[in-house]
Amino acid sequence: MLKEMLENVREKCPLVHNITNYVTVNDCANALLACGGSPIMSDDIDDVEDITTICGGLNINIGTLNQRTIPSMHKAGKKSNELGHPVLLDPVGAGASALRTKTAMELIENVKFTVIRGNISEIKTLALGAGSTRGVDADIADRVTEDNLAQAVAFAKEFAAKTGAVIAITGAIDIVANAEKAYCIFNGHPMMSSITGTGCQLSAITTAYVTANQETPLEAVAAAVCLMGACGEKAYKRLSKEDGNATYRNYIIDAIYNMTGDELEEMAKVEIY
Amino acid sequence: MLKEMLENVREKCPLVHNITNYVTVNDCANALLACGGSPIMSDDIDDVEDITTICGGLNINIGTLNQRTIPSMHKAGKKSNELGHPVLLDPVGAGASALRTKTAMELIENVKFTVIRGNISEIKTLALGAGSTRGVDADIADRVTEDNLAQAVAFAKEFAAKTGAVIAITGAIDIVANAEKAYCIFNGHPMMSSITGTGCQLSAITTAYVTANQETPLEAVAAAVCLMGACGEKAYKRLSKEDGNATYRNYIIDAIYNMTGDELEEMAKVEIY
Amino acid sequence: MLKEMLENVREKCPLVHNITNYVTVNDCANALLACGGSPIMSDDIDDVEDITTICGGLNINIGTLNQRTIPSMHKAGKKSNELGHPVLLDPVGAGASALRTKTAMELIENVKFTVIRGNISEIKTLALGAGSTRGVDADIADRVTEDNLAQAVAFAKEFAAKTGAVIAITGAIDIVANAEKAYCIFNGHPMMSSITGTGCQLSAITTAYVTANQETPLEAVAAAVCLMGACGEKAYKRLSKEDGNATYRNYIIDAIYNMTGDELEEMAKVEIY
Repeated sequence: MLKEMLENVREKCPLVHNITNYVTVNDCANALLACGGSPIMSDDIDDVEDITTICGGLNINIGTLNQRTIPSMHKAGKKSNELGHPVLLDPVGAGASALRTKTAMELIENVKFTVIRGNISEIKTLALGAGSTRGVDADIADRVTEDNLAQAVAFAKEFAAKTGAVIAITGAIDIVANAEKAYCIFNGHPMMSSITGTGCQLSAITTAYVTANQETPLEAVAAAVCLMGACGEKAYKRLSKEDGNATYRNYIIDAIYNMTGDELEEMAKVEIY
Repeated sequence: MLKEMLENVREKCPLVHNITNYVTVNDCANALLACGGSPIMSDDIDDVEDITTICGGLNINIGTLNQRTIPSMHKAGKKSNELGHPVLLDPVGAGASALRTKTAMELIENVKFTVIRGNISEIKTLALGAGSTRGVDADIADRVTEDNLAQAVAFAKEFAAKTGAVIAITGAIDIVANAEKAYCIFNGHPMMSSITGTGCQLSAITTAYVTANQETPLEAVAAAVCLMGACGEKAYKRLSKEDGNATYRNYIIDAIYNMTGDELEEMAKVEIY
Repeated sequence: MLKEMLENVREKCPLVHNITNYVTVNDCANALLACGGSPIMSDDIDDVEDITTICGGLNINIGTLNQRTIPSMHKAGKKSNELGHPVLLDPVGAGASALRTKTAMELIENVKFTVIRGNISEIKTLALGAGSTRGVDADIADRVTEDNLAQAVAFAKEFAAKTGAVIAITGAIDIVANAEKAYCIFNGHPMMSSITGTGCQLSAITTAYVTANQETPLEAVAAAVCLMGACGEKAYKRLSKEDGNATYRNYIIDAIYNMTGDELEEMAKVEIY
């Protein structure tokens, strides 16, 4: 299943429109290319409809959102909905500021999302209408562990039922859920949190995966999440004593570039709930 | 000839003003430093005239263009023209959206460009007033091959005659032409298309080359294009099995940093048409 | 002393709000993570107060400033002052354009800065109200050398007395001064100027250092400046013949990630004036 998802991306080379923050945008573009997709970035209100039209999917990431780009997110999202394109929301920092929370909530009201991907604090904020996010990281109190996993899965399924989107809550343990079914994914490495933008990269890649696998969005998201975690593991093994987070960043993207379907199947640590 | 172009850049260290997209801007800055130039980025309408005045050349790249930066591009371009500075246009995504096509066309009307550099689909769009560009990549139907090379060269010369600019059409085979003469360049590696921004980097470097070689713009552009291709080849040879596009990106910039005039002469695969 | 400063950052993991340029923003985020801090970027007028409130310190960097972000800098700076958070100013390109000089001067009037960090030309511009900066690099005529060091130290102390901020003038020799005392730091490597953004990274890191060491801002800034220089030296030693500025950039961030308090003490080349 994972293998098929990965190979569809490499075969179809989905063109993904990204409205995303300027912090990690370059990594998102290279991660998209690495996984077999093709990136285009465009955020001007007069440009986004044309660009979304020629693309296969849309990735909306609200990090470094501003008054100029928020209307562009709505316009591109609506156009993508009209065209039947998959749309992903990455609510970066929802819960950390009123503007971010409000923007994410309004986007969910106005645009039908195929996937919503964030950390547990961001997703809780969207589900409950308020929350506490430590900047762009999850609040420690919120973290998903083996102990509260069943509860977190139920929460994810409920929010998926409410929004109609596949919900991806990523952290030490990742949950990918629709209303009926959830995949829990145990791949990844703690050092991934010492790099900026692994979450943003995952959102970009996930958009490519759901674009190339439109019949099976839940499985497509699970495959993308496994891919990112497995690449975090592979990249960690390459590190020498003097390497740090900059080299690790490069090695993760390198690992995405080289990952095969068979290897992904082999490395995946997935449980169904 | 190539050697002289490269050494002039290293000797004069041209300061290049860039109005460019936020996707590849960091790579453009490091590529400029690697080739021997010096970068400054500035896109505010009240900042661009002062910055362009202290620089030697201007690089206008319309990727992630917006309502705020488009007027800055015109203002900086006109000021550079007044000062007699070389100006380069990189029409990223012309043909992919109406705004990008219109912006590139209006810039060509209002600003005298020393160089226009893009992929074949972008340049066709500008020459014919309409076109089809696959996002920021060339349409497959447009690609320059050995079979249609003579035709593509004639097209480039014609567009050079019309605009007065050196035209650089880059792809698997690169064409650098003025109205009378064209260099076809066979350097490069297919893996370069798996990195975001090799085109943007080339535009930034090319601006440094024409700034440091103002008497010979055609040769300066040809040298910059050879440099980029040769560095793509050198960097590819360094790759190990586990390396992917992130490491390749770094190795290309490293190769630019280390390239000498003699090595460039040796590696160049250039034919005159 | 330096050891304690570094360890406080690693222990407290200060969350730093950055309003910074889009050229080097990704490197700033990864450098902050490498040193033990945590980054968040936010520049919208309606977002900055909330974000600054949940952070420990604020880093204002005026590179690629624009009409939209300048009011955000003022608003965030004032809010941080109200909250008693450390605030740093990096006046990128002050002296290179009227807008940059004016913006930096107005920020100094309206916001109380804990630290002002720039190259000698930028700091002279702020102190004297006018200056000549070569783009974003120091003017050669201004450079601090062994010969004019005493004079430069006196100038830094005077500007520190006038502004109440710790003044960090960085270059081949770095000066970190308050009104009474100055540290001169002889760490670093000339190749650091072949990378874009080592200054921006240092400003981001310095903000983390003063946030985690609020009782001793002068020593905190000195430790951050030593750290950056020492990492430039360590990273240089790792370079092989084919490596250039791209690999060097990664190795510097890697070195920040791996630096220990003991190693910093050992490598530091500091004199008190």
